[in-house]
Amino acid sequence: MTTIMGIIIAILSIIIATVMDGNSFGALIGPSSLFLVVVGSIGASLSGYQMADISRMPKGVIISFTGKDPDPGAAVDQLMRFAEIARKEGVLALESQLETIEDEFMKTGLQAIVDGVDAEVVRDTLEIELQALDERHQPIIALIKTMGGYAPTMGMIGTVVGLINMLGNLSDPSQLGLGMSVALLTTLYGVIFANLVFLPVAAKLARLHELEVSYREIVLDGILAIQSGSSPRALVERLESYLSPTQRLGHQERAKGAKEAA
Amino acid sequence: MTTIMGIIIAILSIIIATVMDGNSFGALIGPSSLFLVVVGSIGASLSGYQMADISRMPKGVIISFTGKDPDPGAAVDQLMRFAEIARKEGVLALESQLETIEDEFMKTGLQAIVDGVDAEVVRDTLEIELQALDERHQPIIALIKTMGGYAPTMGMIGTVVGLINMLGNLSDPSQLGLGMSVALLTTLYGVIFANLVFLPVAAKLARLHELEVSYREIVLDGILAIQSGSSPRALVERLESYLSPTQRLGHQERAKGAKEAA
Amino acid sequence: MTTIMGIIIAILSIIIATVMDGNSFGALIGPSSLFLVVVGSIGASLSGYQMADISRMPKGVIISFTGKDPDPGAAVDQLMRFAEIARKEGVLALESQLETIEDEFMKTGLQAIVDGVDAEVVRDTLEIELQALDERHQPIIALIKTMGGYAPTMGMIGTVVGLINMLGNLSDPSQLGLGMSVALLTTLYGVIFANLVFLPVAAKLARLHELEVSYREIVLDGILAIQSGSSPRALVERLESYLSPTQRLGHQERAKGAKEAA
Amino acid sequence: MTTIMGIIIAILSIIIATVMDGNSFGALIGPSSLFLVVVGSIGASLSGYQMADISRMPKGVIISFTGKDPDPGAAVDQLMRFAEIARKEGVLALESQLETIEDEFMKTGLQAIVDGVDAEVVRDTLEIELQALDERHQPIIALIKTMGGYAPTMGMIGTVVGLINMLGNLSDPSQLGLGMSVALLTTLYGVIFANLVFLPVAAKLARLHELEVSYREIVLDGILAIQSGSSPRALVERLESYLSPTQRLGHQERAKGAKEAA
Amino acid sequence: MTTIMGIIIAILSIIIATVMDGNSFGALIGPSSLFLVVVGSIGASLSGYQMADISRMPKGVIISFTGKDPDPGAAVDQLMRFAEIARKEGVLALESQLETIEDEFMKTGLQAIVDGVDAEVVRDTLEIELQALDERHQPIIALIKTMGGYAPTMGMIGTVVGLINMLGNLSDPSQLGLGMSVALLTTLYGVIFANLVFLPVAAKLARLHELEVSYREIVLDGILAIQSGSSPRALVERLESYLSPTQRLGHQERAKGAKEAA
Repeated sequence: MTTIMGIIIAILSIIIATVMDGNSFGALIGPSSLFLVVVGSIGASLSGYQMADISRMPKGVIISFTGKDPDPGAAVDQLMRFAEIARKEGVLALESQLETIEDEFMKTGLQAIVDGVDAEVVRDTLEIELQALDERHQPIIALIKTMGGYAPTMGMIGTVVGLINMLGNLSDPSQLGLGMSVALLTTLYGVIFANLVFLPVAAKLARLHELEVSYREIVLDGILAIQSGSSPRALVERLESYLSPTQRLGHQERAKGAKEAA
Repeated sequence: MTTIMGIIIAILSIIIATVMDGNSFGALIGPSSLFLVVVGSIGASLSGYQMADISRMPKGVIISFTGKDPDPGAAVDQLMRFAEIARKEGVLALESQLETIEDEFMKTGLQAIVDGVDAEVVRDTLEIELQALDERHQPIIALIKTMGGYAPTMGMIGTVVGLINMLGNLSDPSQLGLGMSVALLTTLYGVIFANLVFLPVAAKLARLHELEVSYREIVLDGILAIQSGSSPRALVERLESYLSPTQRLGHQERAKGAKEAA
Repeated sequence: MTTIMGIIIAILSIIIATVMDGNSFGALIGPSSLFLVVVGSIGASLSGYQMADISRMPKGVIISFTGKDPDPGAAVDQLMRFAEIARKEGVLALESQLETIEDEFMKTGLQAIVDGVDAEVVRDTLEIELQALDERHQPIIALIKTMGGYAPTMGMIGTVVGLINMLGNLSDPSQLGLGMSVALLTTLYGVIFANLVFLPVAAKLARLHELEVSYREIVLDGILAIQSGSSPRALVERLESYLSPTQRLGHQERAKGAKEAA
Repeated sequence: MTTIMGIIIAILSIIIATVMDGNSFGALIGPSSLFLVVVGSIGASLSGYQMADISRMPKGVIISFTGKDPDPGAAVDQLMRFAEIARKEGVLALESQLETIEDEFMKTGLQAIVDGVDAEVVRDTLEIELQALDERHQPIIALIKTMGGYAPTMGMIGTVVGLINMLGNLSDPSQLGLGMSVALLTTLYGVIFANLVFLPVAAKLARLHELEVSYREIVLDGILAIQSGSSPRALVERLESYLSPTQRLGHQERAKGAKEAA
Repeated sequence: MTTIMGIIIAILSIIIATVMDGNSFGALIGPSSLFLVVVGSIGASLSGYQMADISRMPKGVIISFTGKDPDPGAAVDQLMRFAEIARKEGVLALESQLETIEDEFMKTGLQAIVDGVDAEVVRDTLEIELQALDERHQPIIALIKTMGGYAPTMGMIGTVVGLINMLGNLSDPSQLGLGMSVALLTTLYGVIFANLVFLPVAAKLARLHELEVSYREIVLDGILAIQSGSSPRALVERLESYLSPTQRLGHQERAKGAKEAA
């Protein structure tokens, strides 16, 4: 949420400052500059990426605006519950829980241990899924970051093209100002798209990816622990080493309760 | 203290040089430029941070101006005194000292050993507090640093917006100079805020954080040594390895005295 | 393919934006700027390279546009087939397969094991070929990358030369605009050649080289496994550790089939 | 010596080139620009340093101009002589030599072994002195380097302030040129102070500090060898491993003579 | 050879492009700019170097233009021949070969083994020569590289000085263009000297130095092998591990012949 809010704040601050100076906002609208910066940055960034990466990009932008951070604390709670069930009623009893799980990755893992798949095969399957996630996400993140690097260059190219045309046709000097104004617009779009769109979106996606990978590592570790018959308490203690201090607080109380009960 | 003094000196030098050249200072005041640079930099930096980080930022700025360096030498002296008491009268005798301790971290640790908490639990509790400190401070420092990176860009965006408006409305050429003057103001604010506010404040906070972490590591080590019944001399020798040569001087004499007395 | 498509998209976006602004495209054609940027960048980059590298450069550019990614999955399939033949009918039976192999590197390796060459000599021969590939490719990639670094500098030199000439001959002020226009053209060509030609081509060649090296490492490992009499299943399992998750999917099914049959 | 000579050559080259172009040197004098760049750079750099560092800075600048490289070869010769005396007449005989030693560090070390201080204590004392040297020198070097980083920024700030004032008061267009001229002066001072004063001085001080540290490490090692009763020949062989080939030449001959005599 | 050719191509491309645009080449000649960039860069770079380094610089520039790459392949051949002689007729028989050796380093080494010097002393002597080579070459390379870093700065300083003078004396506006033209010349010289002279020369010298060091390492290893009575075949196999695949080809055939003969 902070990504889209931040972008809106930054763009609003430009608009408000423009209004405060008594300038018109209309002069800042330039479809050709927008076209050159966005399409040109995509073109310049394409080398080294595949068409599939380009087509997945819009979805990436949307996720960067709406994506929620995964909650590893909730996953530890959920896995602790499953460990209790597995301990008391056996792993097969987990089958009834499968429908309640929203996270596909956790579901795949639990299904595997319910099916009695070998521990090593469970680990391999989940690790390949983890790598595949990386393989799917990284090119999109890198592509948007590359676009953020090319946008100011494309903006500068557009401005130079505009200046060359303006300076080469000085028949009507009264148009000089207007020509420079239009030429500069592409520089503006290049800088804004790079700094207020592409780079923040790429940074947000990179952070979401990192959080998801570490979330899945907790799930992977927890599922293997459940399969090996770990006690809920041992499982919580093990998984909590992945958590940040803030996230650990709630669990620690629970773990203490578990200790006293033990 | 040097941070706020340095910023005042630098800004004074700009004002004095302006006056020396017979220029007026009034032309340098621009609320819209100030607004664009500060609010725009916050907006552009937001992606990847949480609202809580933003709301803690003003406190961070104040601390960077007023915060005092922690004194690890004094902590070693204090811990040595506690070690003497613990040796002579037992750890329980430290309870009476608890009220004299200002530092919350040291208090928590001593309270724990007075309460007879297990050594490993004491260490865990204090280490989690250390990590939580890091988790609280780092995002603010990183946010202010990011703002320092965005400020010149926002300043440049404001200037380009101003130039586009000015150049697109050259009906009154006498306004050209004034327009460029106002446009440049945002560049000036961007450079000044980045170099004379955001980056020095971030650098100062990073240094304060580092000093506080190493201070707390000394306290943590000292408290565990007291609990394990270390002699005052051994404690001083152990903790002095954390100190810089200048800080060590005073202690060394004391330690020598301790040796002779031994 | 994405390289040439990306360059075309980026250049088209410049042309379309120029047309959208009602500017003429003719003003952007400058043979002297083209000459200065391309020949000057080659000259400036030459130091530290040999003539042979320069003469191999055009081929490198063509490969970056048309070169296909090697398919390591297909190589694993092919090597698995050879392992089956070698197991059932002996290594000599592979002689009949030699003609069907398109890849020179794999052919050299198989020929060697058919000839009964010592395993260590096979490895040495293929590893020297791998190093020679590196020695042949790296200078071209580095040269094109260096040209990408020099192109904007040469463009800037051309613009400064143009400005110096224009400013030194202001006898006809009406030519001032035209002079600056022509001077800026070299900057434009420098930026475009660097960002839309040299750097993407170098990046693409570097990626193709990397893919080819890792492809050949798979082949080298596979050929040594065949010579040592490895079973097809063991060979597939061993070579799959080089593959990405997506590439591994098809093989895994095959490997499972192999397991069941075993 | 090369530092001050180099700065003089560089500044002379600017003056001579100015005269060659028939320009007056007077236009380059601007007390306000000098003030803004020097005082502003100090202010901007202050954050993170202490007042003591600032007050030691002028001494640092003088040392960078006049400081001589320490001569580790001479120290090896001197230590060899002391080793001979210590071997023949015992360590106490070194007392008479103490007055001849100019280097405070070597004197402290020899005094300690004459006093019969324990080897480990000698090492500790000298190592703490080494660390204290580092603690004294590094902040000054870092401060001057930081000033070199801020000087061009302060120069640019001064120029922008000047341009804003000039452009905002275009009532007398004949002053436009003069205004820009004065504004540019601060840029010039910023670039010159950074590149021809602060950065070379910081580089020189860093190099002197490095040489002094390695010089003292030789002395420290030599003094411990003398205390342990090492032979002059063994001491020279040991200490020569610290020397560069050129410095080693003279010693090697001496060492050979020592070998033959042995 | 490619260095001087590359520089000529790059400068020719500037001249030809100037002529293609119908500009005169005369406007590009500026002795004061040349003086400021070359002498100023030397002055600014001097700090941290010694006078001896400066005086050796012109020789370095010439070597970068005319120096030939050492041929490690030929050295292996030569050493193989010496190994044969040493094997058949004893090391003393190598004395007659000493006159035929052009390379001073190889001569020193062979003379030492003919003189029956101890193996360890031979190694020490040659290694010190290797280090001395490094100590002689590195400062010159670093100095020229530093000059390449300062040249654009000095060029920019010259341009700003020119602009300040021009803008401060606008009494004759017709001279404005000419003044800017002359001012820009220093920027042009700074960029050209940095990118087309200093940096390529430094890069070439660094590469020549690297090649010479690895050449001498081969010679050093070969001479020690000859002294230890190694067979020609073993010597070739050992030294070839230093060679690149291309260089190895010729030798490998010879080595095979040697194997068969063995």
